[in-house]
Parts: sequence; C-alpha cells; structure tokens
Amino acid sequence: MLREEAVSPTTTSGTDRKLLALVRRSLGPIPIALALSDTCDVPETDEPVVATVRFADRATLLSLVNDAELAFGDAYAAGRIEVEGDFIAALEQVYRAAPQTPRLYSRLRAQWFDFIQNNTHRGSRSNIHLHYDLSNDFYRLWLDERMLYTCAYFPKPEASLEAAQEAKLEMVCRKLRLQPGETVVEVGCGWGALAIYMAQHYGVEVKAFNISREQIKYARERAKREGVSGRVEFIEDDYRNLSQKFDVFCSVGMLEHVGFNHYRELGRVIKRAIGETGRGFLHYIGRNRPRPLNAWIRKRIFPGGYPPSIRESMDVLEPENFSVLDIENLRMHYAKTLEHWLARFESSFDTVVRMRGMEFARAWRLYLSGSVAAFRVGSLQLFQVLFAGSRSPFVVWTREHLYAPLQEELDTEVWKPAM
Amino acid sequence: MLREEAVSPTTTSGTDRKLLALVRRSLGPIPIALALSDTCDVPETDEPVVATVRFADRATLLSLVNDAELAFGDAYAAGRIEVEGDFIAALEQVYRAAPQTPRLYSRLRAQWFDFIQNNTHRGSRSNIHLHYDLSNDFYRLWLDERMLYTCAYFPKPEASLEAAQEAKLEMVCRKLRLQPGETVVEVGCGWGALAIYMAQHYGVEVKAFNISREQIKYARERAKREGVSGRVEFIEDDYRNLSQKFDVFCSVGMLEHVGFNHYRELGRVIKRAIGETGRGFLHYIGRNRPRPLNAWIRKRIFPGGYPPSIRESMDVLEPENFSVLDIENLRMHYAKTLEHWLARFESSFDTVVRMRGMEFARAWRLYLSGSVAAFRVGSLQLFQVLFAGSRSPFVVWTREHLYAPLQEELDTEVWKPAM
Repeated sequence: MLREEAVSPTTTSGTDRKLLALVRRSLGPIPIALALSDTCDVPETDEPVVATVRFADRATLLSLVNDAELAFGDAYAAGRIEVEGDFIAALEQVYRAAPQTPRLYSRLRAQWFDFIQNNTHRGSRSNIHLHYDLSNDFYRLWLDERMLYTCAYFPKPEASLEAAQEAKLEMVCRKLRLQPGETVVEVGCGWGALAIYMAQHYGVEVKAFNISREQIKYARERAKREGVSGRVEFIEDDYRNLSQKFDVFCSVGMLEHVGFNHYRELGRVIKRAIGETGRGFLHYIGRNRPRPLNAWIRKRIFPGGYPPSIRESMDVLEPENFSVLDIENLRMHYAKTLEHWLARFESSFDTVVRMRGMEFARAWRLYLSGSVAAFRVGSLQLFQVLFAGSRSPFVVWTREHLYAPLQEELDTEVWKPAM
Repeated sequence: MLREEAVSPTTTSGTDRKLLALVRRSLGPIPIALALSDTCDVPETDEPVVATVRFADRATLLSLVNDAELAFGDAYAAGRIEVEGDFIAALEQVYRAAPQTPRLYSRLRAQWFDFIQNNTHRGSRSNIHLHYDLSNDFYRLWLDERMLYTCAYFPKPEASLEAAQEAKLEMVCRKLRLQPGETVVEVGCGWGALAIYMAQHYGVEVKAFNISREQIKYARERAKREGVSGRVEFIEDDYRNLSQKFDVFCSVGMLEHVGFNHYRELGRVIKRAIGETGRGFLHYIGRNRPRPLNAWIRKRIFPGGYPPSIRESMDVLEPENFSVLDIENLRMHYAKTLEHWLARFESSFDTVVRMRGMEFARAWRLYLSGSVAAFRVGSLQLFQVLFAGSRSPFVVWTREHLYAPLQEELDTEVWKPAM
C-alpha cells in the first residue's frame, strides 16, 4: 500500500505525459501547449505558444487520438476541452499543420455523410431546416440589421459590417448589371435582403426560392414592410422546382448546400431558368482543391455541406456551355465578416446560452472561430462567379464600372438604371 | 447523242444541286448561299444571306462532305473555295451552327493529334518552331510596334491597338502587383515585350523562357536597345528546365501550347519556381467547355495547340494547392485585337504573298478571320487567372487598384513601386 501510494502520482503523470505525446505526434510541433490535470506538453518550437488546450480527463484526450476532427468539436462543446489563450490563433495553427491529403478514413467518412445527408429534395429540406430554422431571434443577435448570413464586401478593411453588407449587395447587382424591368430568380435567398435590395435599387422583379420556413416568413414580412411585396415574391420551395424563364439567375451562399453529386442537376435548373441568353451569379465557399468538409462541421453545423474547388464547381456551368466572365476570391472578406459576427456573438453569449443551452453556445463559438481561422489560413475560400449563356448579348467590356464610388448608388433609394 | 446533249446540262446541274444539298444538310439553314458553277443553293431562312461560298469543282465540294473541318481550310487556302460577301459573318454563322458535342470522329482525331503532336520537350520545340519561327519580318507586318501576339486590353473599345497592348502590359503588372526588386520568371515570352515592360516600369528582375529561336533573338536585341539587358535575361529553353526560385511566375499565351496531358507537369514547374509563398499569372485562350481544337487550325496553324476549359486548366493549379484569386474573361478584347491584326494583315496581303506565297497568305487570312469569328461567337474565350501559393502573404483586398487612371503609369518611365 505504501509503495503504491508513493508511486501512483508519478505513474499517473507518466501516463498522462504519454497520452499527451500521442496527441502531439499527430499535431506536429505547432506552438500550442497541451495540458491534462497537472501535466503539460510544451512543443519544441521557437515560436511563442499561442494557447494551451486543457483536457478535462483522459477519456477526452483518448477520443482525440482516435478521431480528432470529430472528437475535438464535441468535447469542446461539452466543456471537456478548454482553450486558454488565443483560440483563433490556435485553430489557425492546427489548420496550417493539417495533412495536405486527407486520410483514407476521412474520405470514406465523407462518402458516408454524402449518403446519409444526400441533398435530395427531402434531404435538403432536413439539412437546411437543422441550420437555418434554428430561430430568427438567435441569428438576429449577431448578424447585421439586414440579416445577411454570407460574406460581406469591405471596400476598406475598416468598414462597418452594416456598410460592408450593403456594399456586397450593391456589388452583386453591379456584377450582374441589372436593368429596370428585368426578371431575376434567386435561389437560397436567406432572409431576403438581396432580393429586396435588387427590387428597391435596380427596379427588377425577383422570385426568390428558399426551403427554410423561418427565413421565408421573415423575408415576406420584410418585403411588405419595405413596400416591395409587389416586385419580390418569396417562394418556399426547392430550387429544383423552378420552372419559369428569367433574365438573371442568382445564388449567394447556396452552392455549399447543393452537394457535388447534384451540380449537374443545378446546372440544368439554371439553363432552364435563363436559357442561352441569360446571365447568372454564384457566390459560394470553396477550396483551393477538393477536400472533404471538416467532419464535426458536417455532423453538427452544416449537414449536407460541401465547399467545392473551382474545378468541381465548373460541373455546374460547363456541361451547359455557360461562359464564365469573372471570378473573384473574397477569402479575406469572409474572415473579416466572421470576425464581426464572432464579436457580436460573444457579446450575446449569455443570451445564446439562455436561448439554446451552453453546449450549443460553445459549439457555435467553435464554428465561428474555426471559420475565421479557416478563411485566414486559406483552408476555405470565397468565390464569386459571374457567368452568361453561350448566346447572351451580355458582355462585360471591363470591370471598371464595379468600382465607381459606392456612395452614389447607396444614397439613392429610387429605381435607376444600372450603368 | 442528241438526247445526252439535251439532258446533260440538266443532269449536271441536278447532280450539283444534290451535292450542294448534302453540304447544306450538314450546315443547317444558316444564311449562307452555296454555289457550284451555275448552281446555287440558297438557304430557307428569313435572315439576309451574309455570304456565298463558291466551290471550284465537285471534288472540292465532296471533300467537305467527307471532312468539312479539315477540307474547308485546305480548299480555301488553295483557292478552290472563294467566299463572296462578309467572310467573318459567314464563319460566325458556321461556328454558331456547329454541333454542341463534337463527333466521335473529331474526338478520335484529336487523340491522334495529341499523340503525333505531343508537347514533349522535343515535340514542343518542333510545334513552336512551325508557328513562331515563320520570320519576324512577317509578324512585324501586322502586329503592333512591340510585337505582342496575345490578346490586348482595350480600356475603351475605340482604343488603338498600340494603346491597348500597352494597357494589357500594365494590367498584367497591376494584377500581379509587382514590387521593385522582385524576381519574375516568364515562360513563353514571345518577342519579350512584357518582360521588358516589367523591368522598365516596375523595377523587377525578369528571367524569360522561350523555345522560339527567332523570338529570343529579337527579344535580346530589343532589351539591349532599351537598356534593360542587365535586368531581363532571355533564355532559349523549355519552361520545364527552369530550376531557380522566383517571387512571381507569369505566362501570357503559352498554356494553349502546353497540351492538357502536361498540365500537372506545368503545375509542378510553377510550384518549384514560386513555392507556397509566391504568386502567378496565367493568360490563355480557353473554352466554355472541353472540345477539340479545330482540326485544320491544329494541323496547319497551331500544331500541339489546345485551348482548355476553366475546369481543365485547374489541373495546373489545384494539385499544387494554389489559390485562385481572380479570373477575368477578355473574349471580346481578343475579337477586337484580331480585328486590328486582320486589318493590318489585309493591307499587307500582297507583301505576305510575295514573302510566303498565295496559299500561305490565304491560310493565314482564314486563320485570323476565323479567330475573330470564334471569339465573337464565344467558341473561344480568353482567360486571365491570378493565383498565389497557399502560404502567400499576397492578398488582393479589392481589385479597385486595377482601374486607377492608366495614364499615370503610362507617362512615367521610371521605376516606381506598384500600389
């Protein structure tokens, strides 16, 4: 007994040290310390340590050895992992150190997710419901006044989120060069801000599709309040059910939810909508190259989600002979947008906890922080793609008109022809 | 005998009519008349006829039935086909009516060309020699003063070719945001104008690769004349042999000559040159979707040539984890550039005939006219792709700086930092 009492603490600490070393091995020598009770693993690196990841117990630590991608998120949400120091910097370090080629297991799991979260009509409805129907009150806590839940456009990095979201709306309209009287179909319209802006500022008629009931309800009320119900129709339906003809197709932040195996179907839907003479716009989170979405994000935050590489996203456009006119990468704008969201989210953290519980609040803190990190280090990208049908009379001679002073447009609330 | 004499003209004309109808069937009801001796096939269409294609004899006409793509070009060059009316408008009509999916025969032939014109080190040398070493005096007849043989950038459609080529050089430098003292590698540098401009206006050091002996000779002389030999080195070698490190990779008008089966190799070369921290630029003729290059162009004008779709061109960048920052489509700028070249070519037509013979002159008239038509109708596109390594500190916040008044830059011949 005496012997055991004397040895036990050392053994415990020795085992902890070995367990921490196991996690360290998979992480590499990145400047993050790992801690389990009194034992701390400090990396052999010249860089200053940005954070200490503290594990509540051995089981938590072991779960990471087994499947770090999924286990870290769940353990963090459950409060079994705490990160002391700069959380985002730590996540950036982890993402930078991630293996270039995903492991076989990750790829197989991605295929399994593709199967169980397949974005069929029914699957999409369920996937979208789980994220976007959480409650408008929740999103109102940390989005801008217009409830835009997609990458903003910051003419200058120091612009406010409100100004940057307005600039984004304007930029989309300018890229599409909307003309008064034209018809626009928007798919995946969120809370309706873009559709309403287009009708208000560019005098177009918009039909906007969405399968999130909460968002559609909100959008309809907003359109009524803004007095554009006559020109903007919000339709609670799957994008695949659109059947009319339009001058312009527009989708901001939906392609991520379509799923790679449905890209050709989306391409056919777009072709049906705008034929060979219309033009279109796709704004989506993407990648430098194909890679499965983080398993925890896919399981807990965005079921059915997949950010494609440019090569993959061309599966929407090339089979239908659409002509790509312009692609812009706004990655750093999304990092900044997310910084704003995260700051607002943190100021409302207690409210979120009251609304949805601590586990949810922590999960969303991780999701928002991880997204800031992912866009900063470039494991995620943000692409805006402007395209036109093969017989479209729409030619963008230069892109100079996109950069005319913004204020001119933003001060006028009347219908006016685009340039 | 009497009977034959009486019937013969009718029979002849009847046969001719049938032969013309055969060609018509493959062309469809496009507004082009077809003529063989006294017989003329006028299409059943409401559009006004834009041109009459006159065949010298039945054999010529029959060759078209068999293999229009290749036979038309050869027969036109040989003077066995004449086009009366608007030649470019006629070619536009033919391209618009072309089947959306290339026939099996075209695809098989493309594979055969891929094989016999494969862009190995040796194959490339032969392919490039056949086009670019024709003679500098010939190209001088119809290119701009700088000898730029790639798409210009017309700030306004009415800009002169000289101004538009200068604007293109400036635009490339701005997209890359060159900084004084940086090192640039250019592959496929033509007659050296871009490399010289970069050194002169942006104070960078350039190594420029090319396997066309004539072009390199000219470029070296020009660099000496301009007093930048110390900062621009022209290297007569294959791009695959570059081994040094650079800040910037740049290629304008070479990807079309690389061949799809060598894209991954090119990607590795770029990665070797700029690592994960550099940035790069690719400017190339492309397509809305994959399609073999016109067989006549491939056989007579651009051996080894292939204009890729965006999806295909991503095979250069995605495997190396490069991040696409900006893609611009300048299709209509190439149509305009080619209109200028064609006009100058036509004014020097007799000189070209004296230099290289009638068949050559007619072949090049067809190639230039066909290219105007192809860019106008969109069977060819022109893409400019800006990209950066996955750890590049280079971030383009917005593209507004590209559109600062051009004159400022163009008036200064001194080194100055880019914005």
